[in-house]
Amino acid sequence: MPARIVEVREGVLKKNDLLARGLRERFGAAGVAVVDLVSSPGSGKTALLERTLSELSGRLRAGALVGDLATDNDARRLAVSGAPVRQITTGTVCHLDAEMVARALEGWDLASLDLLFVENVGNLVCPSSYDLGESLRAVLFSVTEGEDKPLKYPTIYNSADLAVLTKVDLAEAVGFDRAAAREAVDRVRPGLEILETSARTGEGIDAWLDRLMGLLAGGRDEERPAAGRASA
Amino acid sequence: MPARIVEVREGVLKKNDLLARGLRERFGAAGVAVVDLVSSPGSGKTALLERTLSELSGRLRAGALVGDLATDNDARRLAVSGAPVRQITTGTVCHLDAEMVARALEGWDLASLDLLFVENVGNLVCPSSYDLGESLRAVLFSVTEGEDKPLKYPTIYNSADLAVLTKVDLAEAVGFDRAAAREAVDRVRPGLEILETSARTGEGIDAWLDRLMGLLAGGRDEERPAAGRASA
Repeated sequence: MPARIVEVREGVLKKNDLLARGLRERFGAAGVAVVDLVSSPGSGKTALLERTLSELSGRLRAGALVGDLATDNDARRLAVSGAPVRQITTGTVCHLDAEMVARALEGWDLASLDLLFVENVGNLVCPSSYDLGESLRAVLFSVTEGEDKPLKYPTIYNSADLAVLTKVDLAEAVGFDRAAAREAVDRVRPGLEILETSARTGEGIDAWLDRLMGLLAGGRDEERPAAGRASA
Repeated sequence: MPARIVEVREGVLKKNDLLARGLRERFGAAGVAVVDLVSSPGSGKTALLERTLSELSGRLRAGALVGDLATDNDARRLAVSGAPVRQITTGTVCHLDAEMVARALEGWDLASLDLLFVENVGNLVCPSSYDLGESLRAVLFSVTEGEDKPLKYPTIYNSADLAVLTKVDLAEAVGFDRAAAREAVDRVRPGLEILETSARTGEGIDAWLDRLMGLLAGGRDEERPAAGRASA
């Protein structure tokens, strides 16, 4: 990469880190846990979110910010759940940044939410370096993509807190090799937690929801030990 | 995107266009047709190339340049076919550019090839703007990704000459809607040719090979009408 690009990018990332720190403070103050979903296009972020929002409905107050280059298809799909949803269209930009998130949150009362999902632009490269102030970053990885993706896109795995294997109902049809996938993850990020899910059949969705609930309680415990706010 | 980034990017793209023009001239002079494969990670670029190289073996002289952030897994997979293959590892860069291609070609006698495949980094955003001097850019699109990807990543479809639907053997298992996919392509790129393929079952591979052979003859006819070199 040309030196001038590297220099300008470093300036941009520094500015993003500052904005992300501000967002993290706002999220903490409002008592909202933020989950950033990153993956390749078509790994099933929206399908997992559709299922998640509908399962969480009535149990806690969840909302979503959805990033795409173009279209508001995903926001419309997710709004069916009844959860508040906003779309961010990035034009030609291959990731969300903290400024886009801050702008999309304008006028949104964060204290009205327990959990905010951010569905990033489908990309295994660009979102890696952009902190959005999230509590948890989950990298999705569908069984149809091949077991070696963690090896090929190590940076995004290094920036993630959790891997979510999706479309496991297709594992047999595509001859997915779980051991090879586990080994690929371990080579770039030893011990990274992997949850196996299928938004279609519901397999693994309870474990995923438990993980989200735990995050909520955990986040609160850490940040405001004396607040005693109920976790659901 | 911040103004300085836009300005620097424009400079970089201009430089890339100049380099790509030089590459295109070299490819033309050497009589090699260059096919750039772009897609999301895990859409099956390498699987299609494996099958393609092995089918072409003995029929024409094909080679491949393979781009990835990390690993030379794909080059090793493709080398099994016996075709000459070189890997480009881009580090954190989300696309190939003309300079990387030129560097990877150093010392390679292009006249020894009829067809050179360039497997781009798995990304539906970044490669759009980088001309590599290719004769044909094919955007791959697997049935497991969902029918709306063209709508969400219009720029890459606008830069492509052909769409190749992959993994069609899984179409039924994932409930893929062909009409919706066709409509999505037409909304961003009316009439773009779509070839349906399965590298696993071989479905559609003959049509893909015919398309490649036609490209070869066509490219030669246009560029060197009097050369009279046999096309296979």
